[in-house]
Amino acid sequence: MRVIVIGGVAGGMSAATRLRRLDESAEIVVLEQGSYVSYANCGLPYYVGGEIEDRAELLLHTPESLTARFRLDVRTQHEAIAVDRAARRVEVMDHRSGVLVELEYDVLVLAAGASANPLSAADIPVHTLRTVDDVDAIDALLPRDGSATALVVGGGYIGIEATENLVRRGVPTTLVHRGPHVLATLDPELAVLVEAELRANGVELRTSTEIESVDRGEVRLSDGELLRPRLIVNASGATPNTGLARAAGLRLGANGGIAVDAQNRTSDPHVYAVGDGVEKIGLDGEDALVAMAGLANRHGRTAADVIAGRPERNSPALGTTVVRVFGLTAASLGWSEGRLQRAGRPYRAVHTHPMSHAAYFPGAERMALKLLIDPADDAILGAQAVGGAGVDKRIDVLAVAMAGGITASGLARLELAYAPQYGQAKDPINQLGYVADNVRTGTTATVQWHELPALQRDGAAVVDVRSDAERASGAIPGALGIPLDELRERLDELPDGPVVVYCQVGQRGHTAARLLVQHGVDARNLDGGYRTWSAGRAAELAASETMEAR
Amino acid sequence: MRVIVIGGVAGGMSAATRLRRLDESAEIVVLEQGSYVSYANCGLPYYVGGEIEDRAELLLHTPESLTARFRLDVRTQHEAIAVDRAARRVEVMDHRSGVLVELEYDVLVLAAGASANPLSAADIPVHTLRTVDDVDAIDALLPRDGSATALVVGGGYIGIEATENLVRRGVPTTLVHRGPHVLATLDPELAVLVEAELRANGVELRTSTEIESVDRGEVRLSDGELLRPRLIVNASGATPNTGLARAAGLRLGANGGIAVDAQNRTSDPHVYAVGDGVEKIGLDGEDALVAMAGLANRHGRTAADVIAGRPERNSPALGTTVVRVFGLTAASLGWSEGRLQRAGRPYRAVHTHPMSHAAYFPGAERMALKLLIDPADDAILGAQAVGGAGVDKRIDVLAVAMAGGITASGLARLELAYAPQYGQAKDPINQLGYVADNVRTGTTATVQWHELPALQRDGAAVVDVRSDAERASGAIPGALGIPLDELRERLDELPDGPVVVYCQVGQRGHTAARLLVQHGVDARNLDGGYRTWSAGRAAELAASETMEAR
Ligand SMILES: Cc1cc2nc3c(=O)[nH]c(=O)nc-3n(C[C@H](O)[C@H](O)[C@H](O)COP(=O)(O)OP(=O)(O)OC[C@H]3O[C@@H](n4cnc5c(N)ncnc54)[C@H](O)[C@@H]3O)c2cc1C
Ligand SMILES: Cc1cc2nc3c(=O)[nH]c(=O)nc-3n(C[C@H](O)[C@H](O)[C@H](O)COP(=O)(O)OP(=O)(O)OC[C@H]3O[C@@H](n4cnc5c(N)ncnc54)[C@H](O)[C@@H]3O)c2cc1C
Ligand SMILES: CC(C)(COP(=O)(O)OP(=O)(O)OC[C@H]1O[C@@H](n2cnc3c(N)ncnc32)[C@H](O)[C@@H]1OP(=O)(O)O)[C@@H](O)C(=O)NCCC(=O)NCCS
Ligand SMILES: CC(C)(COP(=O)(O)OP(=O)(O)OC[C@H]1O[C@@H](n2cnc3c(N)ncnc32)[C@H](O)[C@@H]1OP(=O)(O)O)[C@@H](O)C(=O)NCCC(=O)NCCS
Repeated sequence: MRVIVIGGVAGGMSAATRLRRLDESAEIVVLEQGSYVSYANCGLPYYVGGEIEDRAELLLHTPESLTARFRLDVRTQHEAIAVDRAARRVEVMDHRSGVLVELEYDVLVLAAGASANPLSAADIPVHTLRTVDDVDAIDALLPRDGSATALVVGGGYIGIEATENLVRRGVPTTLVHRGPHVLATLDPELAVLVEAELRANGVELRTSTEIESVDRGEVRLSDGELLRPRLIVNASGATPNTGLARAAGLRLGANGGIAVDAQNRTSDPHVYAVGDGVEKIGLDGEDALVAMAGLANRHGRTAADVIAGRPERNSPALGTTVVRVFGLTAASLGWSEGRLQRAGRPYRAVHTHPMSHAAYFPGAERMALKLLIDPADDAILGAQAVGGAGVDKRIDVLAVAMAGGITASGLARLELAYAPQYGQAKDPINQLGYVADNVRTGTTATVQWHELPALQRDGAAVVDVRSDAERASGAIPGALGIPLDELRERLDELPDGPVVVYCQVGQRGHTAARLLVQHGVDARNLDGGYRTWSAGRAAELAASETMEAR
Repeated sequence: MRVIVIGGVAGGMSAATRLRRLDESAEIVVLEQGSYVSYANCGLPYYVGGEIEDRAELLLHTPESLTARFRLDVRTQHEAIAVDRAARRVEVMDHRSGVLVELEYDVLVLAAGASANPLSAADIPVHTLRTVDDVDAIDALLPRDGSATALVVGGGYIGIEATENLVRRGVPTTLVHRGPHVLATLDPELAVLVEAELRANGVELRTSTEIESVDRGEVRLSDGELLRPRLIVNASGATPNTGLARAAGLRLGANGGIAVDAQNRTSDPHVYAVGDGVEKIGLDGEDALVAMAGLANRHGRTAADVIAGRPERNSPALGTTVVRVFGLTAASLGWSEGRLQRAGRPYRAVHTHPMSHAAYFPGAERMALKLLIDPADDAILGAQAVGGAGVDKRIDVLAVAMAGGITASGLARLELAYAPQYGQAKDPINQLGYVADNVRTGTTATVQWHELPALQRDGAAVVDVRSDAERASGAIPGALGIPLDELRERLDELPDGPVVVYCQVGQRGHTAARLLVQHGVDARNLDGGYRTWSAGRAAELAASETMEAR
């Protein structure tokens, strides 16, 4: 059996190595158009910034090491030009010799990844940040003395990583993002935390902004600003590499990626496809383009298993993601509130702001956590977190809970490891479960930050149950202040009619709402408290200001 | 309704506060024999060591703050002396006034915790480390100039925390542990990693050792050693406080804790019990004494829910635990291999030694991971981890997977958050799943470290597939060295008959085993590689040396 793999990095090489372990006798040829295989795509930005010092660290394997260990026939600078499915033949251009060769296969694995969406910027060098060659080029272009500036286009996670690393390298950097907020997997009230961190670290962030024109080294942005960057990094998104597949008549999916089944088989049973080039199984079984290293690696292994006759199958992709943004970590999985709204799907949202570990132990850091819940069955639909320590842990826990079918309320019962350095006796995840359960059971009705204006218009009073000192440092306009610990004694100060209570994060508000409801007041708690409300307001303001500036 | 809660810390106060939120009108009296309520038991050791500097940090609430917020009637220095169930009456000694009072209840909640097992040591002060008063006493006794030495009895997690903090305070400390290895929830080959860390930080660790006698300030250990400690900390285990319950004729469980149902109801429907004093639901539904803050807090809340007429129920306790040991983190959940063996229960074990995050990104730390699996249905039975960063995260993920019924092989499909600072494209948890799946499917048969001697006696050859350099720095006696990358070319050097291959952690061994099996060799892989084998051997040696020394 001869197996040809096109693309020699995450998905392709994972397929090749696993297949060798399963089948010592197969002939396995890996074609890679670039000069390197098995490199750490995800590490590339950090070599630009110098956090990864040794370039060799980026290269996990060489063709030689892969031959020695796995008897793979790895051919770099070999580009697959065309696939003849009828003849089961790949046409290959050897860029070293310039010779075109034809290779027959029994099984073909397409793992060609994705390419940056094109960005034409005339006379300033536009670079992508996707390959070792890319970082070499950026490295060569940029002095380390702060004399050059850069423009990064696209505030997704690659754009943010590029920005962070350019700043780290001493390059003043402007980050231009088309949408109103960076990191599309986050809802606005979490994305603004990331935006604040970018700005606090000197990034010139321009949201709702695009490049309008480039002329003789000068870039004009859609907000009128003029820049003269030495370098433009194009991180404006990527498109599946489907040229070969399309030309060969393979079926594509709803979003333009190669269509595959749960075993990574394409519409041709002799052809498999994995990685950024293919559609994944979405949360509802729909086609979904989720371009993540973990999925590419795992699905490469799935393809190998299936080729070797094993019954492996992929599960739906949650789209779990995490990115470091200077001192912050931002992570998410599943549906966002925005996506749920656009899909017209009912949901419940819960916001909390817990500490990463016991507040009494030094070093605890606060995070913002958000959970999205299916009101029909209490299932977890998605989650987001932005903060310091412990964010990645909580998102992982939620990803496993979601995969394991644990309900939102069921989070309360999870028995997570607790010592003061690591969590809390009631872990943030347990508390999330408590809050979700209180909403589910109607124990405390909540109001989302974006629902407050309408309620106020309808006559609801807003009561701030924080301390006077907290209120003095920022409050919701028009709120009546009665600290929680005085509430029982000051019930008569409340106006008639519905009341929305709030505190800093929602916790005292919950106790206040319980108290009031039992005293006959129609009280609801502002979910996530002042923190979520003010983040949501900041997000709205930022979006409307950039709209006005246009 | 009058509810009396006996014990005003983790379980008791959680019951009281939740009950207030559910029932504004109940009269809630909390009796606490000590001077403080709602203190951070788990933080106490770190105040001794100085990491928590401000004593006030230990006190989460005061009676006053609890009255203001929750209208609780909190009475400190009030000891419950007896319970008259027929009359629904508690006899209470007010230690401030010396007056005995009687209080009637509709519902009683027992949350009296546990007490240190007694340790009689004649004329040297013996302290426990369980209350604020305890740490005040230890603090007062110890100079900070290194002139006093201490002896800690018991190498469970409280004993280890006490030891770490005494060392941090500059007090040379001997830790005496009766069993062959510290931290009973860990199997020996993981416990030795903790023991090495203790020794590396200057702790005089004596395992398989007890106090034999104490005479005029001099302690004689069972190994003959003589010590003159200023302080003895008794951390030799704790026993549920069941005096009141027993005298009142409440049913006790198999391990001497108060018996309760899944709603924390005792054998008297008017009496609930929570926390360290009660039996939990074990992994197989059996009685189990699991004394953890998370369970105490959560079950306190359960009791409140049930008292208020809600349908809350507890799930079985996994016994998830974590402790910091100087630079290491040690964590575990569920069954250990030792416990499974003692129960005669079949299991599969998997050991790995992954990096906390991508090896190419600075700061990755290696951990030892162990998974225990039910061979009948691939269910996760337990897990252990010792290492640096990311240990708590992996144990939490495994705890959720176990709670969610995700199988060992299913770990391979979990979609965990990956960026190079946080994990790996194939996270350690995914790899654990792959290894488990390979064992389950017979893809690679493995050998446990403790099974090797018998196999060698039966004639199996041992082949070391690491590099020459690795082999030079320590290898299994009698092993034949053939580096993995040369294995295909040197097959003829292998002896006839069964072969056990090994590498450093098991990963190359797996590839080697796959290769050999397909070339007709009866090959198995040493699970966890040289690291696990040498840790296991060290554990055996340590245990047998202390046996010989006696
Ligand atoms: C800067 C950066 C940071 C990232 N960070 C993260 C992260 O933190 N976490 C995460 O989960 N994911 C991250 N990713 C995404 C992750 O790297 C991809 O999801 C993953 O590499 C996709 O694997 P793949 O095999 O589909 O494609 P790739 O790994 O991109 O490999 C495809 C290969 O195919 C080759 N190829 C294409 N066409 C041909 C042809 N015709 N003939 C021969 N060879 C061809 C390409 O040269 C390329 O080397 C990052 C990506 C980048 C670029
Ligand atoms: C030093 C130390 C470190 C710990 N670290 C951790 C950790 O890192 N992680 C973890 O999960 N767990 C830890 N624990 C365990 C955790 O603190 C307990 O599991 C938890 O506190 C048990 O709660 P409880 O309500 O049952 O008992 P407690 O919190 O101990 O409260 C019981 C209270 O009842 C009072 N009482 C007893 N009898 C009477 C009576 N007759 N009348 C009136 N009052 C009475 C006692 O004075 C006591 O204050 C630690 C414990 C200690 C001591
Ligand atoms: C590295 C690469 C070549 C794949 O090689 P690989 O050997 O299949 O993968 P890994 O090194 O992760 O090893 C996984 C194998 O080791 C096994 N393994 C891991 N730890 C083990 C242990 N302690 N004991 C036994 N086996 C172990 C796993 O079971 C798995 O084998 P299997 O697939 O047969 O079950 C490929 O992923 C690659 O090129 N990566 C670089 C690009 C990339 O991933 N980029 C995106 C992220 S930056
Ligand atoms: C602190 C203590 C008094 C309990 O007080 P508590 O108010 O019940 O508990 P918490 O402070 O954790 O708050 C939990 C409540 O806040 C709610 N909550 C938490 N975050 C919230 C948020 N962001 N929005 C809304 N509600 C929130 C939870 O739902 C829960 O309310 P519920 O039980 O009605 O559902 C008690 O646990 C105690 O005395 N602890 C100290 C001793 C101890 O635990 N020792 C061992 C560990 S060191």
